[in-house]
Amino acid sequence: MSTQHIRAAIHIAALLWAYLAIAMLIPAAVDMVLDNADWLVFARSSLFLGGLATAVAIATRFPAPPVTSRFGFLLVTLLWTSAALAGSLPLLSSSAGLSVADAVFESVSALTTTGSTVMSGLDELPPGILLWRSMLQWIGGLGVIALTLFVLPFLRVGGVSYLKIESSDIDERPFERFAPYTTALTGIYGALTLLCAIAYAAAGMPIFDAVNHAMTTLATGGFSTHDASFGHYADSPAILWTGTAFMFIGALPFSILMMLALRGRYDALGDPQIKTFTGYTIAFVVATAIYVRVTAEVPFGEALTHAAFNFVSIITTTGYASDDYSTWGPFVVGCAFVATFLGGCSGSTSGAVKAYRFLILFELLANGLRKLIYPNAVYPVRYGDRHVSPEIQRAVMLFIAAFVVIWLLATILLTATGLDLVTASTGALTALTNVGPGLGDIIGPAGNFAPLSDIAKWILSLAMLLGRLEILAVLVLLAPSFWQR
Amino acid sequence: MSTQHIRAAIHIAALLWAYLAIAMLIPAAVDMVLDNADWLVFARSSLFLGGLATAVAIATRFPAPPVTSRFGFLLVTLLWTSAALAGSLPLLSSSAGLSVADAVFESVSALTTTGSTVMSGLDELPPGILLWRSMLQWIGGLGVIALTLFVLPFLRVGGVSYLKIESSDIDERPFERFAPYTTALTGIYGALTLLCAIAYAAAGMPIFDAVNHAMTTLATGGFSTHDASFGHYADSPAILWTGTAFMFIGALPFSILMMLALRGRYDALGDPQIKTFTGYTIAFVVATAIYVRVTAEVPFGEALTHAAFNFVSIITTTGYASDDYSTWGPFVVGCAFVATFLGGCSGSTSGAVKAYRFLILFELLANGLRKLIYPNAVYPVRYGDRHVSPEIQRAVMLFIAAFVVIWLLATILLTATGLDLVTASTGALTALTNVGPGLGDIIGPAGNFAPLSDIAKWILSLAMLLGRLEILAVLVLLAPSFWQR
Repeated sequence: MSTQHIRAAIHIAALLWAYLAIAMLIPAAVDMVLDNADWLVFARSSLFLGGLATAVAIATRFPAPPVTSRFGFLLVTLLWTSAALAGSLPLLSSSAGLSVADAVFESVSALTTTGSTVMSGLDELPPGILLWRSMLQWIGGLGVIALTLFVLPFLRVGGVSYLKIESSDIDERPFERFAPYTTALTGIYGALTLLCAIAYAAAGMPIFDAVNHAMTTLATGGFSTHDASFGHYADSPAILWTGTAFMFIGALPFSILMMLALRGRYDALGDPQIKTFTGYTIAFVVATAIYVRVTAEVPFGEALTHAAFNFVSIITTTGYASDDYSTWGPFVVGCAFVATFLGGCSGSTSGAVKAYRFLILFELLANGLRKLIYPNAVYPVRYGDRHVSPEIQRAVMLFIAAFVVIWLLATILLTATGLDLVTASTGALTALTNVGPGLGDIIGPAGNFAPLSDIAKWILSLAMLLGRLEILAVLVLLAPSFWQR
Repeated sequence: MSTQHIRAAIHIAALLWAYLAIAMLIPAAVDMVLDNADWLVFARSSLFLGGLATAVAIATRFPAPPVTSRFGFLLVTLLWTSAALAGSLPLLSSSAGLSVADAVFESVSALTTTGSTVMSGLDELPPGILLWRSMLQWIGGLGVIALTLFVLPFLRVGGVSYLKIESSDIDERPFERFAPYTTALTGIYGALTLLCAIAYAAAGMPIFDAVNHAMTTLATGGFSTHDASFGHYADSPAILWTGTAFMFIGALPFSILMMLALRGRYDALGDPQIKTFTGYTIAFVVATAIYVRVTAEVPFGEALTHAAFNFVSIITTTGYASDDYSTWGPFVVGCAFVATFLGGCSGSTSGAVKAYRFLILFELLANGLRKLIYPNAVYPVRYGDRHVSPEIQRAVMLFIAAFVVIWLLATILLTATGLDLVTASTGALTALTNVGPGLGDIIGPAGNFAPLSDIAKWILSLAMLLGRLEILAVLVLLAPSFWQR
């Protein structure tokens, strides 16, 4: 790692700060128009961050260094970390009155599209701060799609790059080819968000709520403008099914949504990971709906609506809740625990292990078992009709192993802060998978992360960042050879 | 799979039944001498099983078929399953009055050296049945060492075969070379058990307890003759440290203990897995001892004694408890949860993931991270000074992934039977890792598996067998190609 590369990474981070400073003017304007004192907080934060960004950008002007893998890893981690710190600025000094640990936790939870919150009394908060939380989540969602589509595949960490498959020459000059794709991605992501807001409003949601929830739905983020989350709309099947549909869309691979929108490639929807994701989502929804129908004697339609909303919310790693599903019985709790591991598709806003990794894992397991029977036979590992390279096979297995090891370490650390096993283990899990709610009395779907100690919040903030950046992309910074010149 | 192979497997299982029928005469004799009515139960079971074994053995007399991998897998699964059923016979009709599900659970828990129990009032039970439980565990321990030393390495499932390394020609004619090793193994295992019994007795344990506990200590099994387990001896540091020392020995690779005993090869103790196992054991013991010293203001010596006993018990997958450690504070609960995954060394009586897999996993992770930085560099995967073949690398990763997937599936199934998340998830875990106690009010270190439903007991029995046979060795029977001719 050369100082030239470090300087360049800081320069790009400063440019992102500048964008965030501009974005802060939106909640400032809203609060000003609605005559809310917080407008000054956003204006001041914007001015401060903008100034800092300009100063840092000038101080780190650079002759662009050659792009290397190490630079990519450094940049990705720095972008997310510094953007989270920048995003926490208005939260620190706003009328919400958050501590440093709380503000950073909330901002990391937003930008990583996790959706765990330390804030309560949301229903009474001024609109500016609610909008800022939603905007951070929306930006974080866009960022992670770009990350998994354009960056991580070239860093050989996770991701199924469809662009890489389509144009084989992209490997040589990745960045110049991305401009049109980035525009298309932003356009589709924005259009879907607008569509979602209109659908929410049409289903009866007030405009402000519809805009906020649309942003946090497409980002599979899960921040709400109500303490009760979608429990506020628990009696509106139209709103719940709208949410279910758009959370599901948010967890689809955006490269495929782009192929669909730009080239009418409906066949792309037959992608194996979409089938797997759809399959396990339906399985969990139907199983829990039947269980609730039988045990609670709720009409099947109502059981299905809430099972679909809450389990699509967990599996897509959104984290909304329409009800405290942890009271639906032990089977539902068990399903919620396991569903927290799953995730949606690669190249989407969802986190966790994700469907393509399970697909490759089960293919490897099946092949491993067949090889035990016929040791000398050679079985190709397939993803649909494509061959999975040994490199990707190794990456999938390493991710899963690293994921489990880090989850267990974080669990021990959290119990050391005094949290009980259920809170610690599901808190670490929901942070690493960017889902949002955990289980247990404190951080369950009806709970809040506020009662946790500051040290627990810092551990969880780190876990959210690790999970969002596919773990290995951050861990690589811990290798001594990473920092060698 | 040919019918010839199936018949041969059943024949060998019948021979094992015959040995078990003979073994049953020991508790029968003890109960007869002590004038206990259960002697008749053991005598009848022995007669029935012996008769059945003879009939089956005659009916399946065979011209020995060629030894194949598939035959090995079938045989291993059949041996453990049928021995567990045979071992449950006296439990069914004894004065303990167990149901079928309970008797099979207890027998599986014994033979897999898990040590979870559905029986209570142990202190008042007649000696025969207590002895039978201990004997089953001792036999199961010997069986699993033989399995991991002599069989699994040749089936390419798990295990680090030192014999294979020592004599390269063993691969061609494995079985004829094993006779002297089997004798040596039984001798060393028996001698260590005797030594352990003498040490327990010298430390103040009554002879009957010393014999029973010596058998279940060396087997890292964990069955006790007291409901309070080693809580019965909680005030005797000498007994607790004796237990700690021999549980630790039981979790060492017996191939190395054999090299030590037969050839004085002290250098063999420098084996990498022994270092790793010792390292994480010390880390957990010291961390929890300090935590207990600080939070409970217990003298450090006492805290260390109990931390060492209980965490060596968990990590070696024995499952004794000298106290209800789940009341020592959330950090200890978190440590107990994570320690349940660990296990001792390959080729020992301990279960779980085991030290050598963690060693290879961390080597793979470190190499994976280095490869992200220098994609074209080639890093060998090393186990000490030896090269780890890609085949073993894949086996380790597949085991860990399969382990996690099966654990999560079993957790969901157990919650469906009505168990809460902590009981379901730690119950599934402790069964798969053959540790013994779980966490929570029901199956925690002070609890008992009796209150569980029959269906939960069957699920856990299956999980214990899966875990004991290194998972993949059983899963392979589910592959359709396994049963093709």
